[in-house]
Amino acid sequence: MTLTQHAPASQVTPPSPGDQAVLIVHGRDRTGIVAALSTVLGRHGANIVSLDQYSDNPQGGAFFQRTVFGRPDLKAALPAIEEDLRQELANGFDLEYTVRDLSVPKRVAIFASKADHCLLDLLWRHRRGELPINISMVISNHAHTADEVRSFGIPFFHVPSQGPDKSAAEARHLQLLTGNVDFIVLARYMQILSGEFIEKVGVPIINIHHSFLPAFIGADPYAKAQHRGVKLVGATAHYVTEDLDEGPIIEQDVVRVNHAHTVAELRRRGADVERAVLSRAVLWHAEDRVIRHGNHTIVFQ
Amino acid sequence: MTLTQHAPASQVTPPSPGDQAVLIVHGRDRTGIVAALSTVLGRHGANIVSLDQYSDNPQGGAFFQRTVFGRPDLKAALPAIEEDLRQELANGFDLEYTVRDLSVPKRVAIFASKADHCLLDLLWRHRRGELPINISMVISNHAHTADEVRSFGIPFFHVPSQGPDKSAAEARHLQLLTGNVDFIVLARYMQILSGEFIEKVGVPIINIHHSFLPAFIGADPYAKAQHRGVKLVGATAHYVTEDLDEGPIIEQDVVRVNHAHTVAELRRRGADVERAVLSRAVLWHAEDRVIRHGNHTIVFQ
Amino acid sequence: MTLTQHAPASQVTPPSPGDQAVLIVHGRDRTGIVAALSTVLGRHGANIVSLDQYSDNPQGGAFFQRTVFGRPDLKAALPAIEEDLRQELANGFDLEYTVRDLSVPKRVAIFASKADHCLLDLLWRHRRGELPINISMVISNHAHTADEVRSFGIPFFHVPSQGPDKSAAEARHLQLLTGNVDFIVLARYMQILSGEFIEKVGVPIINIHHSFLPAFIGADPYAKAQHRGVKLVGATAHYVTEDLDEGPIIEQDVVRVNHAHTVAELRRRGADVERAVLSRAVLWHAEDRVIRHGNHTIVFQ
Amino acid sequence: MTLTQHAPASQVTPPSPGDQAVLIVHGRDRTGIVAALSTVLGRHGANIVSLDQYSDNPQGGAFFQRTVFGRPDLKAALPAIEEDLRQELANGFDLEYTVRDLSVPKRVAIFASKADHCLLDLLWRHRRGELPINISMVISNHAHTADEVRSFGIPFFHVPSQGPDKSAAEARHLQLLTGNVDFIVLARYMQILSGEFIEKVGVPIINIHHSFLPAFIGADPYAKAQHRGVKLVGATAHYVTEDLDEGPIIEQDVVRVNHAHTVAELRRRGADVERAVLSRAVLWHAEDRVIRHGNHTIVFQ
Repeated sequence: MTLTQHAPASQVTPPSPGDQAVLIVHGRDRTGIVAALSTVLGRHGANIVSLDQYSDNPQGGAFFQRTVFGRPDLKAALPAIEEDLRQELANGFDLEYTVRDLSVPKRVAIFASKADHCLLDLLWRHRRGELPINISMVISNHAHTADEVRSFGIPFFHVPSQGPDKSAAEARHLQLLTGNVDFIVLARYMQILSGEFIEKVGVPIINIHHSFLPAFIGADPYAKAQHRGVKLVGATAHYVTEDLDEGPIIEQDVVRVNHAHTVAELRRRGADVERAVLSRAVLWHAEDRVIRHGNHTIVFQ
Repeated sequence: MTLTQHAPASQVTPPSPGDQAVLIVHGRDRTGIVAALSTVLGRHGANIVSLDQYSDNPQGGAFFQRTVFGRPDLKAALPAIEEDLRQELANGFDLEYTVRDLSVPKRVAIFASKADHCLLDLLWRHRRGELPINISMVISNHAHTADEVRSFGIPFFHVPSQGPDKSAAEARHLQLLTGNVDFIVLARYMQILSGEFIEKVGVPIINIHHSFLPAFIGADPYAKAQHRGVKLVGATAHYVTEDLDEGPIIEQDVVRVNHAHTVAELRRRGADVERAVLSRAVLWHAEDRVIRHGNHTIVFQ
Repeated sequence: MTLTQHAPASQVTPPSPGDQAVLIVHGRDRTGIVAALSTVLGRHGANIVSLDQYSDNPQGGAFFQRTVFGRPDLKAALPAIEEDLRQELANGFDLEYTVRDLSVPKRVAIFASKADHCLLDLLWRHRRGELPINISMVISNHAHTADEVRSFGIPFFHVPSQGPDKSAAEARHLQLLTGNVDFIVLARYMQILSGEFIEKVGVPIINIHHSFLPAFIGADPYAKAQHRGVKLVGATAHYVTEDLDEGPIIEQDVVRVNHAHTVAELRRRGADVERAVLSRAVLWHAEDRVIRHGNHTIVFQ
Repeated sequence: MTLTQHAPASQVTPPSPGDQAVLIVHGRDRTGIVAALSTVLGRHGANIVSLDQYSDNPQGGAFFQRTVFGRPDLKAALPAIEEDLRQELANGFDLEYTVRDLSVPKRVAIFASKADHCLLDLLWRHRRGELPINISMVISNHAHTADEVRSFGIPFFHVPSQGPDKSAAEARHLQLLTGNVDFIVLARYMQILSGEFIEKVGVPIINIHHSFLPAFIGADPYAKAQHRGVKLVGATAHYVTEDLDEGPIIEQDVVRVNHAHTVAELRRRGADVERAVLSRAVLWHAEDRVIRHGNHTIVFQ
């Protein structure tokens, strides 16, 4: 069962992504940044496909820019473009930048537990061509989704959780992940990651929290929501930091509920929001649309 | 400036509300309640216009029913219907009930402070014929909206807040309100009501909180929301209890925001949600669609 | 791979559905219907679990009521209840009614074509326990989803479309369907059904139209939407009638789009709305929440 | 009643708009546009506050850019900046551009008829400081809102419609408008404008259509929506062209309705969407966020 066979009429086909790259720049705002960057790109015959820019204060505040540019034979030209950018930005600017070839999808590992709705939604969207990622592997502390994951042609690793000491499981995770992934998605992975693991793995980790943070932090938010009698329940995708439920928020959404809904019904409705919110966060991260800044995100949609 | 002059083409005209009443029943669920109630109504030639029923557990849980019924010459027949209901429900049922003639709008006092968007929205909707209420008075601790409120033909009373001791102001409030209102709406009234006042005034009080409770309880929620970097801000209409921000929620809604929005912009977007949420809560309360049950509400929309 | 293995914590478990039935009544409104119906139910010891009622005009208009009731040993008692209802309603009422045992899920056939997102979403929700239906079979004019459908344990039949004359294919469809299904879902089945087929098959057919009807009727609505420059695209679930795209609407929803979205991106965003709208329509139909009335629907949510 | 008295805490105060201008550029895409424009701005010490760019095809498609820039003493520097842009863009680019000083709000005339909800919403948002416009006048074919409009300090002109021949009324309109306004808003103005008027008045005209175009074009869309049994009703703000209901769409939104809603209730719910959609369209037009391109709009939010 290959992607080609399944490719539906609605598959997204961006214009020759093989010849496009994304440039992310952030740092201190100053007169002339946009001109300097676009002059470098122009010098190399690169056309700007899209440009998003944000500054929280034009007088020396924080500056953020996302630029997608293209040119024929981009791959060959990229090293020279990068060197030119390096020299230009050394020139009195206080900026960091990254350039990424858009024809090389980011590699991702998906962590899952018992609930499979977020995991399956990502696998489906990927197969439909909606997510420009390579799913390197799925890791779960439950074995029951192994066959289904493998039917998508994706490696599945069962790493059981064993009590409060996660060190053995996390060591196994690091063996699997190191060098193999560019980011991690926790698709309703119900285990807490240690600060040590977060630091060692060294790639961004996206989590879906099944509530509208900061309401109902912690465990069993749907029961808490029902107890409080709220009229909307939501979900939050965020980057994982050592402070549980406190990492930078990428995306949120809600769905309407009412007095007649049981906790089980809240979970059912919430599941739809969770998978929608998580898939948007993964898409935006995969396309370098999200920039972390302190405990916030800049999202160029 | 009268209602007739302003009545737009879109005014809501329910079919002869002068001949309709609403019956609210709640208590312990038991076999036969619906039959008993509808039999009484049928005996008096009353036709059921709409009926909403909810039980949180058919085996002895809590039962809630809202019935709108009508018949010619309703006003004359109501006392006999009520007496008949009383006798029927004395018959082994553990239920409370109220009957209200829908041709008599509930009387309301609106409390406001500096921000006028919720106040004006209620006054406009009322003038357009959207809210079946009588606005008895507007009370504010600021004088600047007096002319505007009075231009709607509604009495305005300026009762300044003087320091932390609210007793003088609250005594003045009670003089104005006692016997004159069926419920109170706090339309962004930024003063805390004492438990003593809530008890003495003896009518339901609806507040609009400018956040999506229980997130960002307390003061200045938009600043807190911006600090946390959320992607949605919301508003919550709830009944006021002694526990600030903890009363039963009537309605909530949210609006999308992003990284580029300042606190002022969050407030601007939030203001639209606040007035929409508050007006729905007031409408539903005015039509007896909201039943309080513990710290929850049953809302029959 | 069985349902039990997959049953997630969030599975919906209504209180003993094995002892509940749904009664649908519609016809001419008259004083006393609710009382008559609830008295019959009470006579048989049946407790009303939920009751929704709507009348488009209390004076002789059209009346609609959905009642869920329960009692121990319901199955044994149902014939007597039905007979009693028949006699009571013969008594001067102009009403039709149906009673259905909720422990017996409706049997459904899903028709699909190339695009698989609506089909897979239904299979997956069914496996999660979200849809109280029995999926008897999937019929498609394309063979590529056969393996996947069968991995859910559901029979798959490939019935190719052969040119403009559908009579052979439709004859095959009727062989498969007759006696085996209670309703049909067209999950982005891109073939037109003949009036003869609709009549012969004799069960309700639900279609998902990939636009916000009545805007963009007919083929390729996303291209039309992009050409018109709309800011929202939507989807519509409706019952199929001989008049293409004109049947009674069950549910609709929309999603925001903008100038930068290609037709392919509109299709991608639309796909999410299509599967959400279709799944709601299927759920509501399965629970007898939808009553057809002329070219409209009454939906008791 | 002055703005100062009413200015609420939530008033939007952009950072010194007196020193900012907006540059709109559109035309044929080519390598080097962004660099050329930002180099000119940099040469004049202007800092880029925000930059939005869109190209429908990087290889010679249509290019659109909105740039807000600022510098001290902007007003004095603007002529030189404009001259420099003129020379730079003469240099082989096929582009049109406009520069506008953001400290000078656009002047607008609002046309209204009987329904006042859109009119009042604009007046109120303007008074709150939400809309950076000068409302030069309100013109209505009904006199009943005169006092209310004038209480906002805004001139009101009653120009009655007299039968099918609009020429006298339109001549009066042109006398009032010529030289006095930068755009016109039809706030539920229920009269059709002649092609001659549209041409002579020579400024953009924004209309709010009380339906989700292209569904239910023409008169009485809420009655049509109810007749079709739709589950959502909407509103559309668009630029007025000679083809009624066919002009470029600026913004749309919808609200949920159900079978129980009368046409009057649809109108009431629709009114909330109409005023919200119209106010967003007016805000975006006032801030030069909307670029017309054929029968479409590019909206940089």
